[in-house]
Amino acid sequence: MPVLVMKFGGTSVANLDRIRRAAKRVGVEVAKGYDVIVIVSAMSGKTNELVGWVNETSPMYDAREYDAVVSSGENVTAGLMALTLQEMDIPARSWQGWQVPLKTNSAHSSARIEEIPNDNINAKFAEGMKVAVVAGFQGVSPEGRITTLGRGGSDTTAVAFAAAFDAERCDIYTDVDGIYTTDPRVAPKARKLDKIAFEEMLELASLGAKVLQTRSVELAMRYNVKLRVLSSFEEPSDTAGTLVCAEEDIMESNVVNGIAYSREEAKMTLISVADRPGIAAKIFGPLSEAGINVDMIIQNIAEEGRTDMTFSCPTEQVKRAEKALNEAKERGDINFHDLVADTNVCKISAVGIGMRSQSGVAAKMFKTLSDEGINIKVIATSEIKISVLIDRKYMELAVQALHDAFELDKAA
Amino acid sequence: MPVLVMKFGGTSVANLDRIRRAAKRVGVEVAKGYDVIVIVSAMSGKTNELVGWVNETSPMYDAREYDAVVSSGENVTAGLMALTLQEMDIPARSWQGWQVPLKTNSAHSSARIEEIPNDNINAKFAEGMKVAVVAGFQGVSPEGRITTLGRGGSDTTAVAFAAAFDAERCDIYTDVDGIYTTDPRVAPKARKLDKIAFEEMLELASLGAKVLQTRSVELAMRYNVKLRVLSSFEEPSDTAGTLVCAEEDIMESNVVNGIAYSREEAKMTLISVADRPGIAAKIFGPLSEAGINVDMIIQNIAEEGRTDMTFSCPTEQVKRAEKALNEAKERGDINFHDLVADTNVCKISAVGIGMRSQSGVAAKMFKTLSDEGINIKVIATSEIKISVLIDRKYMELAVQALHDAFELDKAA
Repeated sequence: MPVLVMKFGGTSVANLDRIRRAAKRVGVEVAKGYDVIVIVSAMSGKTNELVGWVNETSPMYDAREYDAVVSSGENVTAGLMALTLQEMDIPARSWQGWQVPLKTNSAHSSARIEEIPNDNINAKFAEGMKVAVVAGFQGVSPEGRITTLGRGGSDTTAVAFAAAFDAERCDIYTDVDGIYTTDPRVAPKARKLDKIAFEEMLELASLGAKVLQTRSVELAMRYNVKLRVLSSFEEPSDTAGTLVCAEEDIMESNVVNGIAYSREEAKMTLISVADRPGIAAKIFGPLSEAGINVDMIIQNIAEEGRTDMTFSCPTEQVKRAEKALNEAKERGDINFHDLVADTNVCKISAVGIGMRSQSGVAAKMFKTLSDEGINIKVIATSEIKISVLIDRKYMELAVQALHDAFELDKAA
Repeated sequence: MPVLVMKFGGTSVANLDRIRRAAKRVGVEVAKGYDVIVIVSAMSGKTNELVGWVNETSPMYDAREYDAVVSSGENVTAGLMALTLQEMDIPARSWQGWQVPLKTNSAHSSARIEEIPNDNINAKFAEGMKVAVVAGFQGVSPEGRITTLGRGGSDTTAVAFAAAFDAERCDIYTDVDGIYTTDPRVAPKARKLDKIAFEEMLELASLGAKVLQTRSVELAMRYNVKLRVLSSFEEPSDTAGTLVCAEEDIMESNVVNGIAYSREEAKMTLISVADRPGIAAKIFGPLSEAGINVDMIIQNIAEEGRTDMTFSCPTEQVKRAEKALNEAKERGDINFHDLVADTNVCKISAVGIGMRSQSGVAAKMFKTLSDEGINIKVIATSEIKISVLIDRKYMELAVQALHDAFELDKAA
């Protein structure tokens, strides 16, 4: 039987009614002849509640215990989904990460998948089971402890299963009906894309578009998994949603295909760092070990032999980053005068494969922001994106202005 | 190091403040030099919420999925408790049932413990861990699926760990400060007992006193585990609570030591059963297989060759019992005219070891109820208890009248 992976996010399983609705979609695919692997998130709000409890209990928490706590929401949904399918006379059972087992490394709270043996689940498919409901976001470490894959990890779980089971497609059901040129709540003129290249999606996901987790897109690109994002609240059709696919499958494309933003980005500056060879490694090594997701990095020469080092990271990781850097300072690994965190910024990015062959995109972006009186604090560029940090209060204005300037409301 | 087992029920870990409070008690015992095994329940209300979801999703649920769902509450508390202890600089980690592993049979929703290997946890104690926080109520089946031990199963988990680790004592922290002659909310004259015999506690627990799960007391009796019930809301002392102990450790005792009641008892009657040899086995075999906890059984001869069979079981199991019996009827194993469930009854029991050597207890009980105008529907007796089913509306009245009649407000 061909295998289909279907992933339902938190809002798609927010309550029993929505779980039933999702189960009906699964039933449609089972009726088509698929063996289905369903990946479920926790009911919306549950994981945040658990994370809140952990943070309140222990701000510098033991990540192994964090994982044991926050993984529980998915187990609940998996069981309830299996029961709902059984009520529809569809043979189904739930699987927790350690039961599959979804093997990860020991990097708790942001573990990486190492292996998904498919024999246990395939044996059940062979016995007549039609749907394996798998708790997303979680796995088991070589030490036998529960790991989690980081926020949004259920997307990664879904794509990894699609790869491990050679699935025909991986459908990601969420609360939006596809990938937009930007967030429609911020810019009402935002337009749904029928197709988007893996590379573009990667930039949009990592920049806070929040529809798909970055790693899930990376994995899909590496294993060439057909990935479709679609709404669980619309009537299903074969052309629904947005297909995330290889660049060569897209005929025409705008220069800029999306404007992304992220509110949860903080700007951290190490002031007057002694500028020795290898200093960057000494700064970013400890941050990496502490699991900090450093994004933009800017280095300015401040004075002879000293430098200011600025980087951005998720706001929620600021405390851990400060701890890691201060400890490195105490060990004498690095030397700086001050560490300043600015959590009142946001990141805005323009993304498009077309940038590769078109010049003047950056200039147009900077002029657009300048015309609106928006001051740019940090700039970073890559082959297919330009990102800036600006004051958070200008976020909506900047997104709308850039969306207009690049005419994203019009298809290529 | 001597090992102490401490179990905290749902109200003792109802929120983060209470978890901290419980953790402080654990800290006191660690300071005395104990290696402590803490067994935690789900935060109060959580398990009921999960059970509600399962029932709403699938009234005739697959018990394997039920277990996967409802066991999640304890995992949350275990992780949070471990984090709280770590914040107090006490080396601690959490263990889920499958990690210990707490091995059970495959009787999902009411699994029996088969083995608790102590090598994993003892290895960690040897490495310096002071507290193992274990998620109560759950285990793992030979098939590698999550099992639960039935409601209140965390008490059983605690006693089983006390036996497996040869613990000095098993302290059960709950929301009451000990075992009372009856429920103080029903009879204000109820008196706290300093000691109670295992046998008496067994009858009280199984009859709905709800302080300790029956199986936990059975286990404690079999392995001679010193079991203490005490409140997590009072200042600790060495004489706090009630000690559940062997009969020979109690010098003086009243004839009746407790009046128990249960609201969650239903009366089921199979009307006009064909009375063949072995019919009782044919009726109660399927009920046992369906996991129904049958309590009282009464058989009346109704007419030649036919009989009425009445039994009581928990109200929540009525649907499953009906299903099991109707299926047995369809298979032709049993034959009855009608199956009537009365869920509007309650059970009242008088319990006391002194009954063994004293006659007239039953007569006094029946006269007391009769004087209050209460009609008795079913009677069942054992060596140390007398139970009756009566209309539920008379429950409080019956408990108070019996408490007065047997002078339970006075110590022996």
